[in-house]
Amino acid sequence: MKKILIINGPNLNLLGAREDQIYGKETIEEIEAKCKEKALEKKLDIDFYQSNDEGKIIDKMQEVEKSYDGIVINPAALTHSSIAILDCLRSINKPKIEIHLSNIYSREEYRKKSITSEGVDGLICGFGANSYILGIEAISKLIYNK
Amino acid sequence: MKKILIINGPNLNLLGAREDQIYGKETIEEIEAKCKEKALEKKLDIDFYQSNDEGKIIDKMQEVEKSYDGIVINPAALTHSSIAILDCLRSINKPKIEIHLSNIYSREEYRKKSITSEGVDGLICGFGANSYILGIEAISKLIYNK
Amino acid sequence: MKKILIINGPNLNLLGAREDQIYGKETIEEIEAKCKEKALEKKLDIDFYQSNDEGKIIDKMQEVEKSYDGIVINPAALTHSSIAILDCLRSINKPKIEIHLSNIYSREEYRKKSITSEGVDGLICGFGANSYILGIEAISKLIYNK
Amino acid sequence: MKKILIINGPNLNLLGAREDQIYGKETIEEIEAKCKEKALEKKLDIDFYQSNDEGKIIDKMQEVEKSYDGIVINPAALTHSSIAILDCLRSINKPKIEIHLSNIYSREEYRKKSITSEGVDGLICGFGANSYILGIEAISKLIYNK
Amino acid sequence: MKKILIINGPNLNLLGAREDQIYGKETIEEIEAKCKEKALEKKLDIDFYQSNDEGKIIDKMQEVEKSYDGIVINPAALTHSSIAILDCLRSINKPKIEIHLSNIYSREEYRKKSITSEGVDGLICGFGANSYILGIEAISKLIYNK
Amino acid sequence: MKKILIINGPNLNLLGAREDQIYGKETIEEIEAKCKEKALEKKLDIDFYQSNDEGKIIDKMQEVEKSYDGIVINPAALTHSSIAILDCLRSINKPKIEIHLSNIYSREEYRKKSITSEGVDGLICGFGANSYILGIEAISKLIYNK
Amino acid sequence: MKKILIINGPNLNLLGAREDQIYGKETIEEIEAKCKEKALEKKLDIDFYQSNDEGKIIDKMQEVEKSYDGIVINPAALTHSSIAILDCLRSINKPKIEIHLSNIYSREEYRKKSITSEGVDGLICGFGANSYILGIEAISKLIYNK
Amino acid sequence: MKKILIINGPNLNLLGAREDQIYGKETIEEIEAKCKEKALEKKLDIDFYQSNDEGKIIDKMQEVEKSYDGIVINPAALTHSSIAILDCLRSINKPKIEIHLSNIYSREEYRKKSITSEGVDGLICGFGANSYILGIEAISKLIYNK
Amino acid sequence: MKKILIINGPNLNLLGAREDQIYGKETIEEIEAKCKEKALEKKLDIDFYQSNDEGKIIDKMQEVEKSYDGIVINPAALTHSSIAILDCLRSINKPKIEIHLSNIYSREEYRKKSITSEGVDGLICGFGANSYILGIEAISKLIYNK
Amino acid sequence: MKKILIINGPNLNLLGAREDQIYGKETIEEIEAKCKEKALEKKLDIDFYQSNDEGKIIDKMQEVEKSYDGIVINPAALTHSSIAILDCLRSINKPKIEIHLSNIYSREEYRKKSITSEGVDGLICGFGANSYILGIEAISKLIYNK
Amino acid sequence: MKKILIINGPNLNLLGAREDQIYGKETIEEIEAKCKEKALEKKLDIDFYQSNDEGKIIDKMQEVEKSYDGIVINPAALTHSSIAILDCLRSINKPKIEIHLSNIYSREEYRKKSITSEGVDGLICGFGANSYILGIEAISKLIYNK
Amino acid sequence: MKKILIINGPNLNLLGAREDQIYGKETIEEIEAKCKEKALEKKLDIDFYQSNDEGKIIDKMQEVEKSYDGIVINPAALTHSSIAILDCLRSINKPKIEIHLSNIYSREEYRKKSITSEGVDGLICGFGANSYILGIEAISKLIYNK
Repeated sequence: MKKILIINGPNLNLLGAREDQIYGKETIEEIEAKCKEKALEKKLDIDFYQSNDEGKIIDKMQEVEKSYDGIVINPAALTHSSIAILDCLRSINKPKIEIHLSNIYSREEYRKKSITSEGVDGLICGFGANSYILGIEAISKLIYNK
Repeated sequence: MKKILIINGPNLNLLGAREDQIYGKETIEEIEAKCKEKALEKKLDIDFYQSNDEGKIIDKMQEVEKSYDGIVINPAALTHSSIAILDCLRSINKPKIEIHLSNIYSREEYRKKSITSEGVDGLICGFGANSYILGIEAISKLIYNK
Repeated sequence: MKKILIINGPNLNLLGAREDQIYGKETIEEIEAKCKEKALEKKLDIDFYQSNDEGKIIDKMQEVEKSYDGIVINPAALTHSSIAILDCLRSINKPKIEIHLSNIYSREEYRKKSITSEGVDGLICGFGANSYILGIEAISKLIYNK
Repeated sequence: MKKILIINGPNLNLLGAREDQIYGKETIEEIEAKCKEKALEKKLDIDFYQSNDEGKIIDKMQEVEKSYDGIVINPAALTHSSIAILDCLRSINKPKIEIHLSNIYSREEYRKKSITSEGVDGLICGFGANSYILGIEAISKLIYNK
Repeated sequence: MKKILIINGPNLNLLGAREDQIYGKETIEEIEAKCKEKALEKKLDIDFYQSNDEGKIIDKMQEVEKSYDGIVINPAALTHSSIAILDCLRSINKPKIEIHLSNIYSREEYRKKSITSEGVDGLICGFGANSYILGIEAISKLIYNK
Repeated sequence: MKKILIINGPNLNLLGAREDQIYGKETIEEIEAKCKEKALEKKLDIDFYQSNDEGKIIDKMQEVEKSYDGIVINPAALTHSSIAILDCLRSINKPKIEIHLSNIYSREEYRKKSITSEGVDGLICGFGANSYILGIEAISKLIYNK
Repeated sequence: MKKILIINGPNLNLLGAREDQIYGKETIEEIEAKCKEKALEKKLDIDFYQSNDEGKIIDKMQEVEKSYDGIVINPAALTHSSIAILDCLRSINKPKIEIHLSNIYSREEYRKKSITSEGVDGLICGFGANSYILGIEAISKLIYNK
Repeated sequence: MKKILIINGPNLNLLGAREDQIYGKETIEEIEAKCKEKALEKKLDIDFYQSNDEGKIIDKMQEVEKSYDGIVINPAALTHSSIAILDCLRSINKPKIEIHLSNIYSREEYRKKSITSEGVDGLICGFGANSYILGIEAISKLIYNK
Repeated sequence: MKKILIINGPNLNLLGAREDQIYGKETIEEIEAKCKEKALEKKLDIDFYQSNDEGKIIDKMQEVEKSYDGIVINPAALTHSSIAILDCLRSINKPKIEIHLSNIYSREEYRKKSITSEGVDGLICGFGANSYILGIEAISKLIYNK
Repeated sequence: MKKILIINGPNLNLLGAREDQIYGKETIEEIEAKCKEKALEKKLDIDFYQSNDEGKIIDKMQEVEKSYDGIVINPAALTHSSIAILDCLRSINKPKIEIHLSNIYSREEYRKKSITSEGVDGLICGFGANSYILGIEAISKLIYNK
Repeated sequence: MKKILIINGPNLNLLGAREDQIYGKETIEEIEAKCKEKALEKKLDIDFYQSNDEGKIIDKMQEVEKSYDGIVINPAALTHSSIAILDCLRSINKPKIEIHLSNIYSREEYRKKSITSEGVDGLICGFGANSYILGIEAISKLIYNK
Repeated sequence: MKKILIINGPNLNLLGAREDQIYGKETIEEIEAKCKEKALEKKLDIDFYQSNDEGKIIDKMQEVEKSYDGIVINPAALTHSSIAILDCLRSINKPKIEIHLSNIYSREEYRKKSITSEGVDGLICGFGANSYILGIEAISKLIYNK
């Protein structure tokens, strides 16, 4: 079974609590559970990781090349500024997908500029927790090449 | 059975012929066939429309409110300039999704600015023909609310 | 009796249905009727035209020089981008007035930039359907020179 | 009878003398006379005020809430810079209209940016002295709600 | 007893009446009373001055060097444009503090740019009427050097 | 005999009538006649097409790959905004030349930005009707490779 | 007794050593001591936290919602870039105040842009160590609502 | 004898006191005295006027057309923002010269942008009090045409 | 026989050697020979001049008014910065044409900005050595007025 | 007798011939003669130098420190771009004045930006040939310190 | 023997693996070995540190003032955004050098902007692993003052 | 023995005299002597060239391809504007290094933009005369490939 890493950036551990009209009412644990279920259906094993720290996120992402078959990343606030995450994404020669809960193009002006998106294969945003499910769907297509 | 409209903007009728390293080798007819198959699976009926003309696209989009249950749109080059399409999207109170074949964030600078994306629920890009399949997947979730 | 052309840009056929807190509750037909009544009072004959298509709008506008004594135009979304409409306005040596239903200066940033306004004699905006009535009032002053 | 205040910004007392190819040949007194005549027709009483001083203009404008039923303002050069006048306009819960003699969108680049327009209901420009007449027409519609 | 000048810029005389969700419900007289009370506690004598006129504000501010021991200024709308007030602040070699009722960094884009702030020792904003009280607290520390 | 398509954008059908100090006094029919004469001399067959509609222009341009040996395009106002025409030009693997009657670099600021020019082999502007003649001269060199 | 968290961003542990003409001569320990004294006076219990790491700062800030009654934050260099801290501040429904030792508006251009300030109730800067004391004063007003 | 008006903008009454390393040590009275002496030599009568108020400055400037033969203006801080003064300068058909004590091009970035300079015949800056003397020299050449 | 000057800017003496995928394989001598041949056909005598020095180029260009009937200039890198060459072009009341070997609109961003193009009658670029031939063709039309 | 250098930048040798409505009808020789006369009156010896070449101008300017008592420079087109001339001006510890024939602030946008002005003591522009005379007047004051 | 700290920013632990056409084929361990050898030759002791975490990098850098005689830093992606690292560099009163493997000025636009470079004595980039060797060479000159 | 060219741009002949707190106290001759000594040690022969003239610098640089094995260039003020030097650097297929005496990233804003740096292999700045020594060190590594 192929294995993927799902990365969650700063403050995503607050989901369900923080501004739920934007980010939805599901908690991160509920999303993780949904992801696991979907992954099983798609014959994928997943590691689900959250950190508020750019450095730790990069440490984790650097494991992809050796230990995973793909990465789904929700960089959250780091989307708009982190060249370090972009550089790390570029070093990964595996399928890589960026997701967002909200449609970042219908929010504040500074959320429309994306630094990290240049480094991924594809982007999915605006579907709430379903952005994760669609991300798994999408990466399974890339991994199993269909 | 619910019915959705899939809109294709300027030059998408050239798919398979035009710059295939960016847009992929499948023709618009092949993509339409794939979409129909996926739609059937998701219990959706689809109308697949392509035009090079902003005006005709808006005419068609204005039918959504009355005759469709959702819209999936690939505005192509019009993504970056058409406030008229954005205004039309805003007038639609049905699920609406924007898709792109390529990852517009890893291309020319002027493709990073999106006008239309503000008017949709969610955005999917970078998966080639699979952006359409994921778009149908996503809109079925929005329409059947799951 | 003098004759004027009233041009309505993209999505104005949706008036009354679309975002009525911004554009008002009157339909385009009701506005047309009001315009006709006002025109009669001002001894003007009017043609009322709407299209979602920039090309067709320009085709129609090109008739002004020969067949009309003035033009009142609500370019809607095209206001902010169409140099082609601006060029066409410049080719018209008759009274020409731009109108908008809403006050475009109290809306989104990208609606504050106007391309077409450079090509008209005067501008009226923010009075809902009354922008049309004031436009007819204004053009009658320009045509009958008072 | 309802009462409105007509405010005239810096240098408008020079009308007729200053750059008449832009601003027209009528003097401020002639315009005031025309306004009074039009107001009478529309059953409005008007106070006509001119000052070169932003502070005095704001002092005067602050009387609107208590002593007038609406305001028509030609902020002249202050249009492009005065947040103080904008703030004052926002504090007024009566019909408020901005007018200009010339079409500010066909002049210098720095005249295209308007600060004050965000604070009014509607805008009329480019009709010379008739901008005042149309402004009175428009405010009578707003005040008598027709 | 040391003496300070408190300057209030354009439209602050409308406090309590104007947009109270932003500026609070207290009137300028109530704020003055609170300031006097606080000043007494801090062994400061205050002059409380409001004007809608940049020129008069500068006239008043020029008295600081000779007749006061410090200045607390709420330049209101002039914050964002007045180099003249900045120049005047720079000419004052006494403690000088800028205050705002609202948090100007969570409002419109053009309120984020501050011209006058470069000329003061410190800045306090976002606490409503308490911005004045904290300003007096702060200036007493600067004057009595603790 | 090789065959080329000459495309004329919005308002070029007004030539001779519109602002002749900029665009010259020749009508579009006179220019077409001159082009035919020159083409004959260069052993080229030409189709001469004008439309005010971006969509129809793209429809026509899409015929080049199959039915023509090259394209000469005067996109007029669309030069400065149409990514759709640029995309279409990029899909054409035949000689392609952009022409303008006037020198767009000595006119308004917004005419200095060109979107479409990125997609052509070469650019000729400023020679009035002779820009067309030089364009035919140039494309004959590209087609007959000399 | 109510409890507040005081957060200190990168390099603030160097206070007293680093560029003392800008940041003052007091060390972070001296400031902490002063804060504790002031807090006691205001009947507040404080936790004083410093880190050079954005991730750890966010981890700490996330405790506020559960374990504190308010937050005073000096984000230091992160003020100008951290959307992650802004997002975290927005998730906190308790009084929150941003402070700076220096007046950031009289320093380098890049220090004038603030990202985090949008997320706080109020801002105090320019008073050296007294910014902390005023911050505690201010938050006690917000917490005890006076 | 010809008569000129010398206008001095905000804070110039503080000369000698304010930031003398930039503006020099001479007071406004000493400069006035020097100007009178120079004017006499040049057979010019001068009125020397200072105000901190844009409105009063414009009131005074409007007297030029009727009562003076030329104007020398040091708009001080208003140089960089006042379109109202620019408009007033444009209405004056007499010789008009702008002067500054300091070289505004070797100071802060925002002092390099000049609004008023567009409206004068010539500009002299950077010579301290001698800018006034040279201004009188220059205007005498313009008035006596040599 | 009429005489024209052909100016070649910095580094054009390296043609054939430098980056030939952009500038083509022909040397400057080969281009000169081709130009002479074409000129003869068009009954023009040419002087062909190259310099790496802006000053010398201007010296040479200043001879046009007296000694030539027109100028064809390839300013190379100076196109994007030299106001001095623009000023010189403006002083020439003879036909003047700017040419470039490559299409400067499909290259680096900084090559899209042209300073010198404002000063010429027409512009030809993107045809390699044929840009010179077309330039001679074009100037012969301007000189012999056909 | 003190000695000054007067530098004239590119194309100033064309004076009298080039665009005389902007630069005046006097030739460079006539201006030189006037300067010599004025210099004599002011007890100054002058060297008058013109070149179209930035490099030669800098070579000449480098002589000032050793061989002259001051410099008056009209950098012409180089004003707006030459950091090299600015650097050279900065190396000169003698009085230095920049002059222009026209008022560069009432011309094209790109002439409003000045690079060289940062390096001089004072600036005089807009007086035609009299800018030179006033420049000599000014530098004599700086040199003889009065 | 003097001691220096060599800091390596995010993703530099991937050297040799990541995009080797840009960063070279040597691993971080090989570079460290080379540095140690060079340091020995220059009589310097080095600590070689890498982290993906801005916070940890700052923690480490703060040791320089006490425990090292200089710092060589390759901030990698943090170069372009970290004001925190800049602030830390400024607090260090020892020789400090920034290095990069690649020439950051011939890469993406966003890599041309450097935040950290303002805080170092000198900068070396573009020499691959040799940038480190040259950095050690350079810092030895600064430390041993030759 | 390999041979390199060292180019010195405008005003570098003034070293030691001009602003020595920025550029150091050594003269250009002293730096040349140091370079020769270092070159000898590295088995390199050097030509040391200085000119204030962009054109002459390019003439000299064009000799590199034929007569030298590498180039070290300090373009001084031309760094920030000369596309011509950039183009020339690009035509050179030999090792090429840019150096600066000062750290251009800690100086004026306009010195942070570099045009020429795109065309070199590596960049060294901020070490005073030692930038030259390090440049020779670096180019010897590139030439002798170690």
